[in-house]
Amino acid sequence: MLEWLRHYRRDQLTGDISAGIVVAMMMVPQGMAYALVAGLPPVAGIYASILPPVAYALFGTSMTQSVGPMAIVSLMTGAALAPLAPAGSSLYMVLAAQLALISGALLLACGVLRLGFLANFFSRPVMSGFTIGAAFLIVAGQINPLLGAAFPHWHGPSMLLGLLSLLLLVLARLWLGALLRRLGVSAWWADIAVRLAPMLVVIGATVLAGLFDLGALGVRTTGPVAPGLPALNLASSSGHWRPLLQPAMLIAFIIFLTSMSAAQTLALKRQEKLDINRELLGLGASNLASALSGAFPVTGSMSRSAVNFSAGANTPLASLITAALLALALVVPNGALALLPLPTLAATIIVAVLGMLELSTLRLAWRYDRADAAALLAASSGVLLLGVEAGVMIGVALSMGMMIWRASRPHIAVLGRIGASEHFRNIERYPARTMPDVLVLRIDAGLFFGNVEAVGGRIEEELRTRPDTRHLVLVMSAVNSVDTSALFGLMEWNQRLRQRDIGLHLAEVKGPVMDRLRDSDLPATLNGQVFLSTAMACDALGQGADLNHVSI
Amino acid sequence: MLEWLRHYRRDQLTGDISAGIVVAMMMVPQGMAYALVAGLPPVAGIYASILPPVAYALFGTSMTQSVGPMAIVSLMTGAALAPLAPAGSSLYMVLAAQLALISGALLLACGVLRLGFLANFFSRPVMSGFTIGAAFLIVAGQINPLLGAAFPHWHGPSMLLGLLSLLLLVLARLWLGALLRRLGVSAWWADIAVRLAPMLVVIGATVLAGLFDLGALGVRTTGPVAPGLPALNLASSSGHWRPLLQPAMLIAFIIFLTSMSAAQTLALKRQEKLDINRELLGLGASNLASALSGAFPVTGSMSRSAVNFSAGANTPLASLITAALLALALVVPNGALALLPLPTLAATIIVAVLGMLELSTLRLAWRYDRADAAALLAASSGVLLLGVEAGVMIGVALSMGMMIWRASRPHIAVLGRIGASEHFRNIERYPARTMPDVLVLRIDAGLFFGNVEAVGGRIEEELRTRPDTRHLVLVMSAVNSVDTSALFGLMEWNQRLRQRDIGLHLAEVKGPVMDRLRDSDLPATLNGQVFLSTAMACDALGQGADLNHVSI
Repeated sequence: MLEWLRHYRRDQLTGDISAGIVVAMMMVPQGMAYALVAGLPPVAGIYASILPPVAYALFGTSMTQSVGPMAIVSLMTGAALAPLAPAGSSLYMVLAAQLALISGALLLACGVLRLGFLANFFSRPVMSGFTIGAAFLIVAGQINPLLGAAFPHWHGPSMLLGLLSLLLLVLARLWLGALLRRLGVSAWWADIAVRLAPMLVVIGATVLAGLFDLGALGVRTTGPVAPGLPALNLASSSGHWRPLLQPAMLIAFIIFLTSMSAAQTLALKRQEKLDINRELLGLGASNLASALSGAFPVTGSMSRSAVNFSAGANTPLASLITAALLALALVVPNGALALLPLPTLAATIIVAVLGMLELSTLRLAWRYDRADAAALLAASSGVLLLGVEAGVMIGVALSMGMMIWRASRPHIAVLGRIGASEHFRNIERYPARTMPDVLVLRIDAGLFFGNVEAVGGRIEEELRTRPDTRHLVLVMSAVNSVDTSALFGLMEWNQRLRQRDIGLHLAEVKGPVMDRLRDSDLPATLNGQVFLSTAMACDALGQGADLNHVSI
Repeated sequence: MLEWLRHYRRDQLTGDISAGIVVAMMMVPQGMAYALVAGLPPVAGIYASILPPVAYALFGTSMTQSVGPMAIVSLMTGAALAPLAPAGSSLYMVLAAQLALISGALLLACGVLRLGFLANFFSRPVMSGFTIGAAFLIVAGQINPLLGAAFPHWHGPSMLLGLLSLLLLVLARLWLGALLRRLGVSAWWADIAVRLAPMLVVIGATVLAGLFDLGALGVRTTGPVAPGLPALNLASSSGHWRPLLQPAMLIAFIIFLTSMSAAQTLALKRQEKLDINRELLGLGASNLASALSGAFPVTGSMSRSAVNFSAGANTPLASLITAALLALALVVPNGALALLPLPTLAATIIVAVLGMLELSTLRLAWRYDRADAAALLAASSGVLLLGVEAGVMIGVALSMGMMIWRASRPHIAVLGRIGASEHFRNIERYPARTMPDVLVLRIDAGLFFGNVEAVGGRIEEELRTRPDTRHLVLVMSAVNSVDTSALFGLMEWNQRLRQRDIGLHLAEVKGPVMDRLRDSDLPATLNGQVFLSTAMACDALGQGADLNHVSI
């Protein structure tokens, strides 16, 4: 804990200060915008950006992670709370903090129990599909705020302001960096300017709103921000622990996935080591801190952490400086924050979220593995059609389903001898010789409950097409593990083959697998032998006979 | 379809007739008892035993499967309907048939879409734990009917009759077979007598109830059975399609698992081949037939199918004969059926279900793999504490969780050369020599989303302890597959190592894996080479240098 502080070097300070300032300036509009996505008053987004990064700095392991509100997690928060309380009500705010509390407690518990492996319940294509679906949902949710009225209606001044903001943000994203560099601005400053474009657009729109009194024209603004730091929030609704549990589990899962993918990308760039279980503790503590601030679930964000990193952050001190600046913004006179036009905030959300759309995974999966590409599209469609919560469950089901489906089609090769050598190869790929009474099968997969029936079925099939078989040799060189279900399978095959007077032999069993099998009844009851090599098995069983029988 | 009928041989008839009669006699009390478990009138259990086996005979592939009511599926039916309608109401009966309809439609759809692999979502220890938990729940549910009053109260005559029945059934199960054989009865007849003991006890209790007018003493009986065959039922409750969907999915899953495990065990004994997807069609059709009969979800039962098999069934004709006899029992005068005492039926359920308790899986898993044993106990506890529906989901989560957990700890070996040979082995198990600048890692697992992060982490760790490494060779001899997530991983490792000026090489890539990788960008961007063997890789990279550096 705070190891980075003990080894803090003075030369790290400049980077941390500049990153702290840049991220704070980015955080104000982003935090307020994502609070709106979650159905909360904009100030909640600032509350969610003060204590949570402090908690993360205490417990997390990433040096450059920036913890706070994040688009998808805010979308999920809104989806979870919508059926439970009217948006804007005080119950809604209590429930948002309670959701952060439960999510945080779950993340902490997972960290303590070292359940970091749970992140592996989503495959990469499924995560990509989930993100694409969620991005579309978020954009769809911002159409009405952008137009200032419910689509297909619009409110002229709001729509003009919203579309103008959108145009400026898109232009800044596409060309501002190149333009500034051409004007002689250094690459670092040009990059920072691009990152701060949303802040500048929001300031511009706020100034416009003030000058022309756009509020009087009906352009909605963020409204007055309660002055001062967030009060300690300990409120909870006792009737809502149960209905919040499942959404909190799904949100905690996505918090973890999102944060880990951001942290890992950056840790790789800096060649740092992350401790996945301490990351869980950091995220759990952050969400508890968010709950205490009366805010909502938070996570590490890829886009914001990348800004933190490229603006020079060396340690979590950068995040502490960001937090301090945001706290300062709440205590100084900040009447201007009340004038932020919502159409402009909607535009910043749309542009930020479109940046999350990343089609390279789909493209690659489409070329490499159509089934993975189909899973990606199914995950996107699931989110779009059934919502973001169902989307998480669909994503897990798709990931697991793909795994089980692949496992149910194990690769099994019939082996034959190459000439008179000691080498045995797949008879479908090599001109290898088989013996009429010895069937040699190489199982190219770890044996476990997901494939044991399929392997058993395949063995039966091969035996049916080779009725003269008296010995079955299973070559286990590629079998990395044998679970309890598969052990039962082996014992059943053994018994069944014994009834049919066919020997069951194992060859090339790996050390760790053999160590485990010795703890079972299998070696004692095996109706055959365990051979070190396939050649030794065939020499012993075939008695050198009939090597002239050539298959294929 | 009906292939067995086209090839029917006359010598199969005797066995089919005797099995048909034996199973019919077993089915009457069992069907009525399991209808009670489902919260339905006893006659529904007979309805569920007529058309469903006929439908299965048309579509299924097992020759000896006996389809009808089954304890766990009845328990799940009761659990699904209890919150939706009061037991005994006509709505309850409509919903029971509707549940069979939805389950049947889901099973049919899975069969048409060839989703038989979905059975692999439960590991064997988890299935065993689930069964144990469900068995306890069923027994617990029969305590009150056995006592004739709500525990801790009891109704004297009911309790006496119930406990007497229980005693007789247990004695019959334990000693009747041996006794009869000692008295010179043939093993076949002794076995049949044991199987029919529940029928005989029920007949005895019914006679007692009639003779002594136990009904007047307050012993509850099955009550009058509506005469005649079931009317065609097309009723459904339009408001209940949605709430029934999830229970129907869980029930369909368990129907499939239960039936497949029964069918597979018997098919192995008879060396028959099952078509898993046609089994789904058979079970789907059976449940639709049950719905049309106004009954409830049905499945193939291990215990009943075993009786069918050992009583001589050769083909589904045995089940058709059973169905015909049960239909006959409904049309002949059957007033005696009304007098069946419920405490005796409860005793038959308890004894039947205790027969499902099978602790050998726990014992074996405990010795072989504590984690699997823990999953078994967790599945049992889940069913007992949270109910049978949550138990199915917990079971799936446990199975998947175990798989992901195991995948997150892949076995990776650092390889060294044995002497000056071409053989490379794990340096922790053999006195093998490594080179200071070439790190050779053998990955003992297929690469996929579940382990790609763990493998990447392990690679980083090994590189950190060997800072002189200039070449990393991944030996892929045990990598049976590389999914899209893992392809991304490989590409990221490649890019990262390139930045650090470390070459990434692959060796011994399997044919099918290499075929797939050729469809990706990896071969073109690889910062290294693909070698046929580890020895060739080390010869080329180490330039024969420094073979004297000995590790361990």
